[in-house]
Amino acid sequence: MRCQSGVEKASRTRASFSRRVLNGLLLCSGDMEHLDKYMKDKSFVLQLVVCGLRAVTRVILANNPLSGGLILAALYWASPWQGLLGTLGVLASTLTAVITGQDSAEVAGGLHGFNGMLVSLLMGEFSSAGDWYWWLLLPVFLGSATCVFLFSGLSSFLDRWDLPAAVFPFNIIIILYLLCTGPEHPYFPHHSVKPPGALEPNATELIALQVIRGIPLGVGQIFACGDLGPSLLILGAVFLYSPLLAVHALLGSAVGTLTGLSMAVRHESLYSGLSGFNGALGCMTVGGLFFTFSLWTHLFAIASAFFSAYADIALSNLMGTVGLPASSWAATLVATLMLLLTGSLAAYRIPIGQVRAPERNLRSRSQWEAGNTEERESTDV
Amino acid sequence: MRCQSGVEKASRTRASFSRRVLNGLLLCSGDMEHLDKYMKDKSFVLQLVVCGLRAVTRVILANNPLSGGLILAALYWASPWQGLLGTLGVLASTLTAVITGQDSAEVAGGLHGFNGMLVSLLMGEFSSAGDWYWWLLLPVFLGSATCVFLFSGLSSFLDRWDLPAAVFPFNIIIILYLLCTGPEHPYFPHHSVKPPGALEPNATELIALQVIRGIPLGVGQIFACGDLGPSLLILGAVFLYSPLLAVHALLGSAVGTLTGLSMAVRHESLYSGLSGFNGALGCMTVGGLFFTFSLWTHLFAIASAFFSAYADIALSNLMGTVGLPASSWAATLVATLMLLLTGSLAAYRIPIGQVRAPERNLRSRSQWEAGNTEERESTDV
Amino acid sequence: MRCQSGVEKASRTRASFSRRVLNGLLLCSGDMEHLDKYMKDKSFVLQLVVCGLRAVTRVILANNPLSGGLILAALYWASPWQGLLGTLGVLASTLTAVITGQDSAEVAGGLHGFNGMLVSLLMGEFSSAGDWYWWLLLPVFLGSATCVFLFSGLSSFLDRWDLPAAVFPFNIIIILYLLCTGPEHPYFPHHSVKPPGALEPNATELIALQVIRGIPLGVGQIFACGDLGPSLLILGAVFLYSPLLAVHALLGSAVGTLTGLSMAVRHESLYSGLSGFNGALGCMTVGGLFFTFSLWTHLFAIASAFFSAYADIALSNLMGTVGLPASSWAATLVATLMLLLTGSLAAYRIPIGQVRAPERNLRSRSQWEAGNTEERESTDV
Repeated sequence: MRCQSGVEKASRTRASFSRRVLNGLLLCSGDMEHLDKYMKDKSFVLQLVVCGLRAVTRVILANNPLSGGLILAALYWASPWQGLLGTLGVLASTLTAVITGQDSAEVAGGLHGFNGMLVSLLMGEFSSAGDWYWWLLLPVFLGSATCVFLFSGLSSFLDRWDLPAAVFPFNIIIILYLLCTGPEHPYFPHHSVKPPGALEPNATELIALQVIRGIPLGVGQIFACGDLGPSLLILGAVFLYSPLLAVHALLGSAVGTLTGLSMAVRHESLYSGLSGFNGALGCMTVGGLFFTFSLWTHLFAIASAFFSAYADIALSNLMGTVGLPASSWAATLVATLMLLLTGSLAAYRIPIGQVRAPERNLRSRSQWEAGNTEERESTDV
Repeated sequence: MRCQSGVEKASRTRASFSRRVLNGLLLCSGDMEHLDKYMKDKSFVLQLVVCGLRAVTRVILANNPLSGGLILAALYWASPWQGLLGTLGVLASTLTAVITGQDSAEVAGGLHGFNGMLVSLLMGEFSSAGDWYWWLLLPVFLGSATCVFLFSGLSSFLDRWDLPAAVFPFNIIIILYLLCTGPEHPYFPHHSVKPPGALEPNATELIALQVIRGIPLGVGQIFACGDLGPSLLILGAVFLYSPLLAVHALLGSAVGTLTGLSMAVRHESLYSGLSGFNGALGCMTVGGLFFTFSLWTHLFAIASAFFSAYADIALSNLMGTVGLPASSWAATLVATLMLLLTGSLAAYRIPIGQVRAPERNLRSRSQWEAGNTEERESTDV
Repeated sequence: MRCQSGVEKASRTRASFSRRVLNGLLLCSGDMEHLDKYMKDKSFVLQLVVCGLRAVTRVILANNPLSGGLILAALYWASPWQGLLGTLGVLASTLTAVITGQDSAEVAGGLHGFNGMLVSLLMGEFSSAGDWYWWLLLPVFLGSATCVFLFSGLSSFLDRWDLPAAVFPFNIIIILYLLCTGPEHPYFPHHSVKPPGALEPNATELIALQVIRGIPLGVGQIFACGDLGPSLLILGAVFLYSPLLAVHALLGSAVGTLTGLSMAVRHESLYSGLSGFNGALGCMTVGGLFFTFSLWTHLFAIASAFFSAYADIALSNLMGTVGLPASSWAATLVATLMLLLTGSLAAYRIPIGQVRAPERNLRSRSQWEAGNTEERESTDV
């Protein structure tokens, strides 16, 4: 009896341990809103760190400081210089938002940091002056700070349709920066961009394995990161926030790669994951984030991924004629369009202010539809 | 006496016959709303045919299934392959609208089909792979279906100003398609477009008769049709819907040709009617369709035709630098601007939801202004 | 006693004289709203002259008929042909506004004339057919008249956000005109524009004095005027309207020149003042005009000048690839963005309908904040 009770006890302990681990994991996944309460009376620096990490994940449509830490680690792993630029970009734009008196809840949620981060990363990526070119910090600071202005202005503009400013600020600023400077600029030279539809004189056979490798790289390319390891770590960070979002990221990247194949883009585009990242973003936006997950939204997410990827090839070819990249214009425009859609998809639309991790969106909606007597907010514990 | 009465009877019969013919014609002209009641309990396929034919006429701002039949006949006459593509485009986008749960009244009115039709026709027109290249059906289906998304999203966006989405979706999709592919694309090659302002090294004397022939061709070019016979049939179809609209179509095309002459565009542009079709569209929109017909609206319609035609030359020159056509961007933008205008024109503006054939608009307005006690809808029998 | 009283009297007379001069100057500065009452029963031609002169100053964000006279004098001084074109442009667009039934208060305020004037000036500036080429009056009339349509339509559109149409109509029309015609156009040839980032093969040393001279020229370039004397006169006209605005004009032009230096633009750009005028416009909009003057708005005005100037370099490089100038797109877009901004700047925002000279804005606000019981309008005598 004693032995049995010992075993029972051990198994109970084990069960309670694994339950605790599971609870711990659940606490670490999703939006981690419980952290906000805990952070309220902490120092400014600590708050800045948390909101900076949230901002890092906002780039990939997540919102979780732990994921942010993982992504930052991935970026430093891929290139310490890029990691540094990204960190500075987040800090510069978040601090600008604080100084210019933006809404503190938005700042705390990381909404004013992610555009700055993207601008910094892409400035580093396109610079042909090599790593550790310290003068680059000047445009990085200026560009990141300007994102706050654009984000605030565009939000006011798009607010009429309950649309987010998303990464429009980043897309605008990076284009302006690249236009200001040029391939032979004396201070800030940068690489010229080759359009994906450019003809390859010595085209070799397509290597299937390389193409498949491009699919996870497409997720990394959202952060301008072209290495497999860091890309997988970024994917893991998304998985920590929301497994559903991670699945849609991979699915969208695959759709984007398929689209690239169907339009016979340059092999380099497929191998590097550049064909996939607009598809990934387009797919993530619809599949669970701004719409409650369902079979319908899943199908629309795939359609959105296809549309984003085709539009990206078109815009890349257009902007490539003047040596510019299309960055994430395609996905941002398509996502905005999807949010405006009427018909069956509109029924699943979640108001911008109530968007949480896909799993939470799903739960709060089902509770809300079941109960309907209680307030939506109060059902979310 | 008897003889006289016989004559009288015959003349009365004749009168009643001609009255009946006239009534029959009147029943076939205009929006044919009486058909909708009749169609309500008919099979889905028959409803699809009627709404598809309505969609065909929506391209040229009309809304009449019989006109749609005539136009479709004209397209098959000009080129069976183009006719087939147009038919498939209408069906693809209308069915997509049904599947994605768009408003059924809009679908029945043909609002979700005309953009798809235009996309298909232009894809066929620009393709350099020749007729009966069956792979082209793939982009035709995809492009037409995507128009529904754009139409729905843009409608939500423009609804704030009571503006129609018009042919913006077509213009966007065809540009994206042409950008995705290219002149030497392995799967979907297409002709490169020469801007109207391009210099002609061996310019010959301008032939006046050819220029005049370009005026009715301008109406046909709305459907990318460059043959005289079919163009006249299309004009006849518009006349069946509304004589006033047909007059404005010709007038606008003439204004467009004049504009082309004043800017010394390439002769080919004038001869083919490409100079005229934006003018025609710009003139039709204002002269009677979205505004009650009057001397003022007539003058504004001519101004709109001039502005559309000049803007078309400008945009064609701009987009021609990257080998793209300006399609109907100019007319669509100018028409949108006209609908936003304040001042004396705004007094004639008809709310989008109440736009009918120009003759009906005129009648319902005069009745409405005279009575003003009865509801506007009830005065329309 | 007598002598003393004489001195006293003389000093009193002198004091009263200088007070009267000051009062006279004060009457001539600012918006001169007292003139409107006086003009009410005057002839149409006189009213047209005053509203035309107001329109001339609207170009540079002022609103004062005397400043308008000074500016017009400066333009005729710089080039009589340009002066004539400007005059015709103002008249053509103002009369079009009257004919098309635009709001009479707007017309009287000169809101419908300044875009037409800019279009005419720039058409003359870019024309390579030389001065006194009378055919140019045709596009000048047409272009100026079309501005009214665009102004009215865009105002309706932007009204949802309480944004002004500003010089968007001018920017659109001049681009369309330059696209319609071309460097080798048979009727209306024009100079091709060299982007500021174009490489200079035989670059000489930068001359500091020339660069400093470019700062006041930047103010003149708002009217496409590149001579120092007339530019200073224009600056004086702005000073008459509002010293604060004149200071911001110079400051903004200096910021623009600094920006040009930091991006290593062509020397010609710096010397001619073309680098400065977007900065000047961007600075004037924020610093006192649309926002109550304060330290905050002053800082934001400098930020706005920097942003406008950088964006101008970027857009000039982009549009220069097809031989087009960026005119004042950058400043107009940035100013629009600033008006949309949330956060601390928004607290200083003045509703569009209540914008007056910066000094008046400041006074009416302080009175309004102090009193708050009286109506804002009634506090303005």
